[in-house]
Amino acid sequence: MITFYDLDGKVKGIPWNINVWKTRYSLNYKGLPYKTVWLEYPDIESTMKKIGALPTTVKHDGSPMYTVPAIYDDSTEVAIADSVLIAEYLDKTYPDTPVLIPRGTYALQNAFQEFLFSKLMPLWILTIPDVPSKCLNPRSAEYFEKHRSLDFGVPSLEVMRVTGEAREAQWLKVQEIFGSFHKMMKDSDTWIMGDKPSFVDFVLASMILSIKTLYGKESKEYQNVMSWHGGRWGRIMTIFDEKYSTVPM
Amino acid sequence: MITFYDLDGKVKGIPWNINVWKTRYSLNYKGLPYKTVWLEYPDIESTMKKIGALPTTVKHDGSPMYTVPAIYDDSTEVAIADSVLIAEYLDKTYPDTPVLIPRGTYALQNAFQEFLFSKLMPLWILTIPDVPSKCLNPRSAEYFEKHRSLDFGVPSLEVMRVTGEAREAQWLKVQEIFGSFHKMMKDSDTWIMGDKPSFVDFVLASMILSIKTLYGKESKEYQNVMSWHGGRWGRIMTIFDEKYSTVPM
Repeated sequence: MITFYDLDGKVKGIPWNINVWKTRYSLNYKGLPYKTVWLEYPDIESTMKKIGALPTTVKHDGSPMYTVPAIYDDSTEVAIADSVLIAEYLDKTYPDTPVLIPRGTYALQNAFQEFLFSKLMPLWILTIPDVPSKCLNPRSAEYFEKHRSLDFGVPSLEVMRVTGEAREAQWLKVQEIFGSFHKMMKDSDTWIMGDKPSFVDFVLASMILSIKTLYGKESKEYQNVMSWHGGRWGRIMTIFDEKYSTVPM
Repeated sequence: MITFYDLDGKVKGIPWNINVWKTRYSLNYKGLPYKTVWLEYPDIESTMKKIGALPTTVKHDGSPMYTVPAIYDDSTEVAIADSVLIAEYLDKTYPDTPVLIPRGTYALQNAFQEFLFSKLMPLWILTIPDVPSKCLNPRSAEYFEKHRSLDFGVPSLEVMRVTGEAREAQWLKVQEIFGSFHKMMKDSDTWIMGDKPSFVDFVLASMILSIKTLYGKESKEYQNVMSWHGGRWGRIMTIFDEKYSTVPM
């Protein structure tokens, strides 16, 4: 059985973190059974050390940083963090399940993910300040506030908040960015690689899902995104909601 | 026979433009015979209208913009501009030649190309001001100076020029960016998609080649790039130089 490490939040059973959803979608797409362990941010490092997962990046002070998503697979006694490395591991270890990173596309999928993250900065500016109050328990909220402020180089996340007309303008920027990805794809394709989902679709869907998690399914924000570009993102999210969104406890 | 439209330059037979090289490499990789027509910038629009190629983008004033690379294929009477569209056309029309955009990777290859272009801004800042004096005949130099200044929002390309220690620092930035792409790839892979070149390798090689065209094969600039990241880019460029660099007149 695979143990999957997710971030705990205010609403039990509704995972909220973009990076962790990439792996949850990956596991669900493959149909692999797993159980979820819910962590608060300050407990990630000790837990990862305990299971033997390596750090995935470095902190601002240069010391190793441990992150989720992570899995521990007791059938192989392997612990891995980082959604791309997990996807690779799952493809290799469970070759009879649907493929996440088709042969030859490792670097392309990596690059697509980085590109999407870097381009969507206008979305992060809109959403990040809402995460602590809407999604997090106090211990994680404090951690998130401190670390994300450092990441964005701001004294507090609240100073990033955009309101009123400026907020509308910021959403227009987000729409334009989604439009640029829409243009990169064929109109007839549902998925980035055409007829089947692959890891990059899970990255994209995780980002869109975060809007629903923060503002609600019926919110103007989420409904707008669902309608953009001929409803392309709406169609994807309907499939994700129906097929790949289970949250085993 | 395919007619391939390239940009003329100061040195006959040494094409200099990054975008056009992507298609020249594509044609050479496929082993398709073609002849080259050399254009000056101000003659692109009238030539493209004559052969029936569509505009690929818009000018700063919103009017249609015609660009090279472009091809006219007299076996099908088709004219196309834009390196990705040309690659797609060649794959479809000549299915027995090596594939440029493997099935399912159209959006990924598109995104990779855009990501590379956007990330490599520090390289364009270094190289663009050198293009008119080193590569172009007077009519194209005047056109390039005017249009690229508008693209970069500067009064003249000369104000972009970086010298001395700032130039060294700028090259370090370029090295870091290549390093980030190095990290996205497997160490054992020569090509972005693993064991075979594909369109994105031609994009990457075109960008690296521009450094050789501007500063010379033996220049410190080019030799440095050849040595970066365990010689990865050097190995790629050796293969390109040997196999895919012919320039039919």
